Amino acid sequence: MSQNPRDNFSSPDLIHFNNAGASLMPRPVVQAMIDYLNLEAKIGGYEAMGEANPKIETLYKNLATLIGAHEDEIALFENATRAWQVVFYGMDFKEGDTILTTSAEYGSNLLGIIHQKKMKGINLELIPAEKTGETSISALEEMIKKRIPKLLAITHIPSQGGLVNPVEEIGALAKKYNIFYLLDATQSIGQMQVNISKIKCDALCATGRKFLRGPRGTGFAYIKKERLKELLPPVVDMMTADWGEGMDFKLRNQARRLETWESSFAGKLGLAEAIKYALNIGIEKIEKRVVHLAEILREKLGEIENITLHDQGKIKSGIVTFKIAEISSQDVCKELFKRNINVTYIPKEHFPLDFKIRDLTDLVRASVHYYNTEEEIDRFIQVISQFGELNS
Amino acid sequence: MSQNPRDNFSSPDLIHFNNAGASLMPRPVVQAMIDYLNLEAKIGGYEAMGEANPKIETLYKNLATLIGAHEDEIALFENATRAWQVVFYGMDFKEGDTILTTSAEYGSNLLGIIHQKKMKGINLELIPAEKTGETSISALEEMIKKRIPKLLAITHIPSQGGLVNPVEEIGALAKKYNIFYLLDATQSIGQMQVNISKIKCDALCATGRKFLRGPRGTGFAYIKKERLKELLPPVVDMMTADWGEGMDFKLRNQARRLETWESSFAGKLGLAEAIKYALNIGIEKIEKRVVHLAEILREKLGEIENITLHDQGKIKSGIVTFKIAEISSQDVCKELFKRNINVTYIPKEHFPLDFKIRDLTDLVRASVHYYNTEEEIDRFIQVISQFGELNS
Repeated sequence: MSQNPRDNFSSPDLIHFNNAGASLMPRPVVQAMIDYLNLEAKIGGYEAMGEANPKIETLYKNLATLIGAHEDEIALFENATRAWQVVFYGMDFKEGDTILTTSAEYGSNLLGIIHQKKMKGINLELIPAEKTGETSISALEEMIKKRIPKLLAITHIPSQGGLVNPVEEIGALAKKYNIFYLLDATQSIGQMQVNISKIKCDALCATGRKFLRGPRGTGFAYIKKERLKELLPPVVDMMTADWGEGMDFKLRNQARRLETWESSFAGKLGLAEAIKYALNIGIEKIEKRVVHLAEILREKLGEIENITLHDQGKIKSGIVTFKIAEISSQDVCKELFKRNINVTYIPKEHFPLDFKIRDLTDLVRASVHYYNTEEEIDRFIQVISQFGELNS
Repeated sequence: MSQNPRDNFSSPDLIHFNNAGASLMPRPVVQAMIDYLNLEAKIGGYEAMGEANPKIETLYKNLATLIGAHEDEIALFENATRAWQVVFYGMDFKEGDTILTTSAEYGSNLLGIIHQKKMKGINLELIPAEKTGETSISALEEMIKKRIPKLLAITHIPSQGGLVNPVEEIGALAKKYNIFYLLDATQSIGQMQVNISKIKCDALCATGRKFLRGPRGTGFAYIKKERLKELLPPVVDMMTADWGEGMDFKLRNQARRLETWESSFAGKLGLAEAIKYALNIGIEKIEKRVVHLAEILREKLGEIENITLHDQGKIKSGIVTFKIAEISSQDVCKELFKRNINVTYIPKEHFPLDFKIRDLTDLVRASVHYYNTEEEIDRFIQVISQFGELNS
């Protein structure tokens, strides 16, 4: 890594361990947005698009490259939740249909499922987890055999713990039983390989602002070509459809028919730079370093009295979660923030099902990226040890 | 107006008559976004929110002030179409329900209505227009008397012509018969007074990028407090709902429950500056100047042989539409763009119903804002006269 691996104007004193919240954007990402905003102000928002359009076409192509898909299978949204929702709410659920998911599914996704359960009378069943936290493949197959679900909704890396779900094994089952498989890759994209041809999911949602180091207000979906026709656009506008004859419309034949017409082009150009930036470094290299740094962090945190690690999973990601005995995680975050260290805390309200099962009240989450350093980890450990001692 | 009424770095040679597409952002709008993007890159996307949040609360308040509503009745979206959709798709339409709209309704809105007509078997009826183009109040009341509609969907200023619809008279009828009244104020907000207490609509959608001079990718909705409970959130996430006990959720009691969680805070801060900027100048003053400039433009265009004006309406807005005989409007735009003049063209595909009734193939649209000048109009007329002569 170079002299300034964050490649931006952040203070060298800052320790940013909140990459699972939002990473620090590198300079080319910010600069692309600033340049474009200035251009819009100078020549007009629509007039500037001539310059933006080829770059945005490249963005679709690069996103496709990133996950091993085709550009026609990519749609851009303002966040991952919206990307997840256009797929989920686009499915034609009928009373009695079953959705399988896990208690560790992202809160907004779970709310959406419960909403549809109420509205349409579908069954929601939770797949049990292994003792190590992963979605249990054997339990899943048993459930499928009893009743073929309409949808399998899985989060690749739950944001409240370090575990990486066995998404390829799940994909093999989904394919075997021809079940629609929707993957939330919000926390995995940009920190590790996410390859459609291996995972074999039918749709995927992801965000720009986390491990991809893109801007806030950006996200995307992948929708397998053969599955697109199964999704009703939950809403229709001029992006989703062309006018047909008279009072009718024809749906476009690309995933982007699920987008809405108007959006921030500055945001898209920022995302485009972020994807180029990540591809340029290489996801494999990024993954290796993230895993390495997270392992060191876990190891050193584990040595501190009064600190309990709460990461699950046989395979672990760059997300490290822990609890300092007797101190509220929110207070830990606040104290660290005063000392120029960014982490976050997770209250039980965000993951009520998962935290109940795991008997947790709240957690501190420290998430590392490739631009973090071992020196930062050492400084972090030094500070956090003092917190631990306060109550020992 | 000051020396540089556009208040940005655009070339003095540029004539921007595409304000109904997207206005030129003033410097404080762009600067607010640039500063915030830099801050996000410097300290982190979530860490920067501490600075953004009070400004965003002010944005809700100022938007409420702008239209005479309460801040709890405002929700932010990435565009006006999405704002329109959360209201429209949130309505619990049943088979046989009637929606009244006009052939001049915005294309994406019409597509949404036709989509629901197909899905749910609702009736779509078009309110006839006066000869001058406005929605006919007498025809509307007759239609209502025959069958009370579930929804009245009206566009304040259709983007394909200069007319201003009689939204207050329509509101009086909507109130009299207790009909849900959804107003698309995309083209009116920022160029003229849009006051909820006068219009008496139940919901309204608007965009940031047009006459408000805000950034692309921003928009908002107003939803009357008493009507909010009638709207199902079409999708549910952690922004719309709080977790209740166990597997349930409670919907928030503000219009913003219709928003999604993640969004561009830079965009919101840009919009916040744009609203302050507009309120500072004063909408009344803006309206007066826009109408004045548009009148001059129409008058001078009307004197050119081979040019036909196509603006309708007893009251006209800052949107001026015309056709040069024998020349495609798209070609006119391209030629003008080469000469540093921004206008746009409207193909019939965007408004198939309206253009069929009015026997139009395409139009050139020149839309003025308060920062345009009479000198720009003169230069524009000089250039466009030569186009007219080409075919005379």
